[in-house]
Amino acid sequence: MKITKPTLILNAAVCRANIARMVNKAQSQGLELQPHFKTHQSKQIGQWFQELGVYKITVSSLGMAQYFAASGWNDITVAFPCNILEIDAINELAKDIALTVLVDNSDIAELLNSQVRNSISVYIEIDSGGNRSGIKPHQLEKVRDLANQISASDKLKFKGLYSHAGHTYGAKGESEIQNLANKSIEQLSSLKQLLLSEYPHLIACFGDTPSCSVLDSFANIDRISPGNFVFYDVMQSEIGSCQLQDIAVTVACPVVSIKQEENQLIIYGGAVHFSKDHSGKYGYGQVVEFINNGWEIIEGATLIKVSQEHGIIQLEDGLTSEFKIGDVIGVLPIHSCLTAECLRSYQTLNGELMDHY
Amino acid sequence: MKITKPTLILNAAVCRANIARMVNKAQSQGLELQPHFKTHQSKQIGQWFQELGVYKITVSSLGMAQYFAASGWNDITVAFPCNILEIDAINELAKDIALTVLVDNSDIAELLNSQVRNSISVYIEIDSGGNRSGIKPHQLEKVRDLANQISASDKLKFKGLYSHAGHTYGAKGESEIQNLANKSIEQLSSLKQLLLSEYPHLIACFGDTPSCSVLDSFANIDRISPGNFVFYDVMQSEIGSCQLQDIAVTVACPVVSIKQEENQLIIYGGAVHFSKDHSGKYGYGQVVEFINNGWEIIEGATLIKVSQEHGIIQLEDGLTSEFKIGDVIGVLPIHSCLTAECLRSYQTLNGELMDHY
Repeated sequence: MKITKPTLILNAAVCRANIARMVNKAQSQGLELQPHFKTHQSKQIGQWFQELGVYKITVSSLGMAQYFAASGWNDITVAFPCNILEIDAINELAKDIALTVLVDNSDIAELLNSQVRNSISVYIEIDSGGNRSGIKPHQLEKVRDLANQISASDKLKFKGLYSHAGHTYGAKGESEIQNLANKSIEQLSSLKQLLLSEYPHLIACFGDTPSCSVLDSFANIDRISPGNFVFYDVMQSEIGSCQLQDIAVTVACPVVSIKQEENQLIIYGGAVHFSKDHSGKYGYGQVVEFINNGWEIIEGATLIKVSQEHGIIQLEDGLTSEFKIGDVIGVLPIHSCLTAECLRSYQTLNGELMDHY
Repeated sequence: MKITKPTLILNAAVCRANIARMVNKAQSQGLELQPHFKTHQSKQIGQWFQELGVYKITVSSLGMAQYFAASGWNDITVAFPCNILEIDAINELAKDIALTVLVDNSDIAELLNSQVRNSISVYIEIDSGGNRSGIKPHQLEKVRDLANQISASDKLKFKGLYSHAGHTYGAKGESEIQNLANKSIEQLSSLKQLLLSEYPHLIACFGDTPSCSVLDSFANIDRISPGNFVFYDVMQSEIGSCQLQDIAVTVACPVVSIKQEENQLIIYGGAVHFSKDHSGKYGYGQVVEFINNGWEIIEGATLIKVSQEHGIIQLEDGLTSEFKIGDVIGVLPIHSCLTAECLRSYQTLNGELMDHY
């Protein structure tokens, strides 16, 4: 592992274990795993899913869908409110693969119907608590009208209901995740039940890493689409989705200066590498040292400040002498999705470069 | 201007006016402008500086130095604590251009002296209030020892003192910037004065956008190296460095959904496009509409929430009917350096694509 500047390092064994655990959970619950690839955005990691029998995926942009379609994936859901301005990309992709998009209102369904050239599948997005996009689960008539509108089109295929319970990211601990997730799943399940007589093949897809990590039963949900679990991160460990040892990525950062009097290290690693996500307990990321083909937490070291490319690590008394300029230390990201997006390339502990969209 | 997804749009006229204003100020004050290029990171915008007689530049990474060296710049300062792990890149660059690096301790000076192959120039970094990197200005002996150590090397040339007064970013209003900046400049000037008898050719370089935007006198500073002023942003307008109309970039974002009941727009534009910098008054960015080859603020529209790729704009009552799905609206970034870094490419209002490192 030769590091000269901030570099995202992947522990492939931990990552593969995270994937296997979620694949097994889905199998044991009779769910289809349709993983979200927005976190890793890498065709090699996609391959690791395929080796375990996963053939349908979720992404967050049409560009990402094009990237994965080019490496052989042919059943892709773009889990973002359908953007009609990208109709050319939608039409191109739908020629080659089974493409699914999300809609949450009749205007976009109408625009799609008039502009789509090839058949595409459509999930209606349900807002099961995140207050972001989607129809509220109690608005049955609105959902039914939209389902009817979609079904009346000869180019749009009504596939079912999709919901991302983003509000679980605000949970503190496993039992709070369970409460929030169970409520969301109940709402989605009831809605599915109410539509099943008209739409017997309707699929309910539910996805977010906290829920899918801690739940052991998913009512009559058919598919799950978590994404972050592939890497996890400090935020997920704080929420209660994982342990710190489940985190599969760290940012390797050169030590560029040492402030002896302040007990501080200055590292090459800042907001453009980690993003600015922050945790009260862990600062801008958990500091680790690289050892024996892995990493270990450095107790008494906190990344207290980041500017564009600088990071300041505060050390407890007596620790400063253990570091020298030119050392490389690691930072476990607070939010690995943003960190992977910032760095846009990564390598394994063995130095294998991973392709990234 | 054909927009299909989040795209950074440059108002070239505003940008050129920002450049011209800073060039004129430097000239009128007898200062050499050695602009920081970390914000725009574009060879075309570099060209606009060159047309006004600027030939020395500042960057924040060796990669950026390589990019600008490849487009003809031959006097480049890397304003970041020198990273010895990139010695190969340093040696390569120093063969071709006049390269200057920053050091703030004797360990890095020694490492550089033993590993540098070609002659390079060295600024000693002074921490004039930001508490990030650099020697404190009152530590005269430490600065003198380091200057002597550098001067004793036959490969390192002691160039002078470099200081970035990053703490001005915390100012509220012009007079607070002036107070902070004047204090920093006084300290740097005194330090220069104390070293001038031994080092008569010593250069003092001072740079940050708030100081350089509002000050009209710079004591015996020789050079300034601000960067952000090329685009400015909402944060700079709040600090008091500029007006909102001086901001030269906005992110064009498709409207993908409208929540009538909540008076909200969902836009394609989130943390991976804007970064997560936030302002109490302006949210995650000031919402604007594109008009007449420019843009205008939309009163009553606030970007209140961002997730990875979604943005939620809260509208005042009655405004929702003025928007439809497929519209493109703009968001003035809170911190343009991070936004430009996130988006990594941009185009002018006329659709001309700008190259980006």
